[in-house]
Amino acid sequence: MSERACVREVGLRDGLQSIAEILPTEQKLAWLDAEYAAGVREIEVTSFVPPKLLPQLADAEAVVRHALSLPGLTVSTLIPNLKGAERGLALGVHEMNFVLSVSEGHNRSNVRRSTAESIEDFRRVVALCRTAPEGPRPRVACGLATAFGCTIEGAVDEERVRRIAVDVAEAGAGAIILADTVGYGQPAAVERVFRRVMADVAPLPVAGHFHDTRGLGLANVLAALNAGARSFDASLGGLGGCPYAPGATGNIVTEDLAFMLEAMGFETGIDLDRLIAVRELVHQALPDVVQHGAIAKAGLPKNFRLSRLAEAAE
Amino acid sequence: MSERACVREVGLRDGLQSIAEILPTEQKLAWLDAEYAAGVREIEVTSFVPPKLLPQLADAEAVVRHALSLPGLTVSTLIPNLKGAERGLALGVHEMNFVLSVSEGHNRSNVRRSTAESIEDFRRVVALCRTAPEGPRPRVACGLATAFGCTIEGAVDEERVRRIAVDVAEAGAGAIILADTVGYGQPAAVERVFRRVMADVAPLPVAGHFHDTRGLGLANVLAALNAGARSFDASLGGLGGCPYAPGATGNIVTEDLAFMLEAMGFETGIDLDRLIAVRELVHQALPDVVQHGAIAKAGLPKNFRLSRLAEAAE
Repeated sequence: MSERACVREVGLRDGLQSIAEILPTEQKLAWLDAEYAAGVREIEVTSFVPPKLLPQLADAEAVVRHALSLPGLTVSTLIPNLKGAERGLALGVHEMNFVLSVSEGHNRSNVRRSTAESIEDFRRVVALCRTAPEGPRPRVACGLATAFGCTIEGAVDEERVRRIAVDVAEAGAGAIILADTVGYGQPAAVERVFRRVMADVAPLPVAGHFHDTRGLGLANVLAALNAGARSFDASLGGLGGCPYAPGATGNIVTEDLAFMLEAMGFETGIDLDRLIAVRELVHQALPDVVQHGAIAKAGLPKNFRLSRLAEAAE
Repeated sequence: MSERACVREVGLRDGLQSIAEILPTEQKLAWLDAEYAAGVREIEVTSFVPPKLLPQLADAEAVVRHALSLPGLTVSTLIPNLKGAERGLALGVHEMNFVLSVSEGHNRSNVRRSTAESIEDFRRVVALCRTAPEGPRPRVACGLATAFGCTIEGAVDEERVRRIAVDVAEAGAGAIILADTVGYGQPAAVERVFRRVMADVAPLPVAGHFHDTRGLGLANVLAALNAGARSFDASLGGLGGCPYAPGATGNIVTEDLAFMLEAMGFETGIDLDRLIAVRELVHQALPDVVQHGAIAKAGLPKNFRLSRLAEAAE
């Protein structure tokens, strides 16, 4: 039996919030459906930010409602604050991701408060979800942005990442996402930090969110895999980045991540050919947005499907 | 003290043999000088193939003579056969790389003989170098092409890679280069094969030659690093590929490799800014050749140089 690894698509949130074009709701749903049909089972479908700030995501409620109709799909949303959490709770999303920055400078430039204040905000989000009167409560994950470096502050202290991870775990996080928001991460640090944080917050799951800005995205995934992480964010065609971090473009590419994991023998549940085909659908909807990625251009290795089938049969 | 890792530039051979343009000798020497000035200390400067087959490398002797004038530079050449070895010996190159394919199909399509026959050829090359009457003898390395998969045969048996590595070690190889000629390699297999081969041929050095065709080039470097390898081939701007493997373009990018190694704390001896600047020189010489790579576009992380200096001072 192969070990499972999870590919979490964030293009509909991280990708779309980073481009000027506004994708019509109908085309978002077609993208979502196509990834679901390809076997993707965790999708961050939107962010509950004020529509005035991000008109690209003004249809958050409609997208979430549709996503919730797909059986077996874990519907995730980003929530910037308590107000966002209320919207998520009202809709019944499965997972909400609150994000704060390990770097003070990045947190202040992003949400105009200290990291400690954001941890307090996270505490309030958890408390709100725990008092929710009915229905299954959502898992509240906490993303630690700039965990591997910051365009404002440069290097980020690894001990600080660990302390903040412990703080948000104690605050009631259901999962932690260590995020290389600006693509400064390198594999030795990634493996070290994942090992330490995972040991400190066990058995809480710790996921990775890597950008390929400096070419090390998949090497960083491998480093986190070596530390024991099994869940990774990625964006179809590498869409997106961080609107607050200048020059920081490029989530790792969903289809390249899925290819690496499948090639290594992990079970992702994803049909690579169908996933790669989703690029064309997104390209037709967003013809001016450049798509990145290697596997779509090079094609799968010869007999790749056959050898995966043989492994699955073993 | 940081551990050393070696970046071996192969663009002047693997890169130039894969493009239609013929770069004038003077511009090759300028490229070579610029990489040397940036701190690169191992360069595969050419291949001793018949000029009729590869007019791009018809100036092999002139390039080698110039390279040999640079103090401290290890001058490497590819040799396809005994004739090439004679040319290398006559010039006094420091290292000659003989290449054979682990995949029978690839070896036959490449040099029209079986892998076993190529191992015999390699034996003759080693014997020739050992009987060289004067001067320091060159190190004779053996590159095992298609060690991680083949566009003709698909998957390649890992036990076969190991057996061939032992055979060429017994034949007198001074080093072994495991090459993912067509970009089929994945990190789990790379780490496994490097570990096994390194254990079997120790203390012979085993280097890695990876292509980024399917996006896994640097992840594969990391896997080989984890197995203990410390020397890697790469090509400036990702120039090159394998002319015999359709679709197989893209050596890993020298400057991205050097960035990853330096960021991880390895000492490469390379000045990243000066190395990145060599791209412009090559671009002016080959304006129509696309250069790949992330670090040249994104720039080094903030305070990267300072933190490297601080580490070096520790």
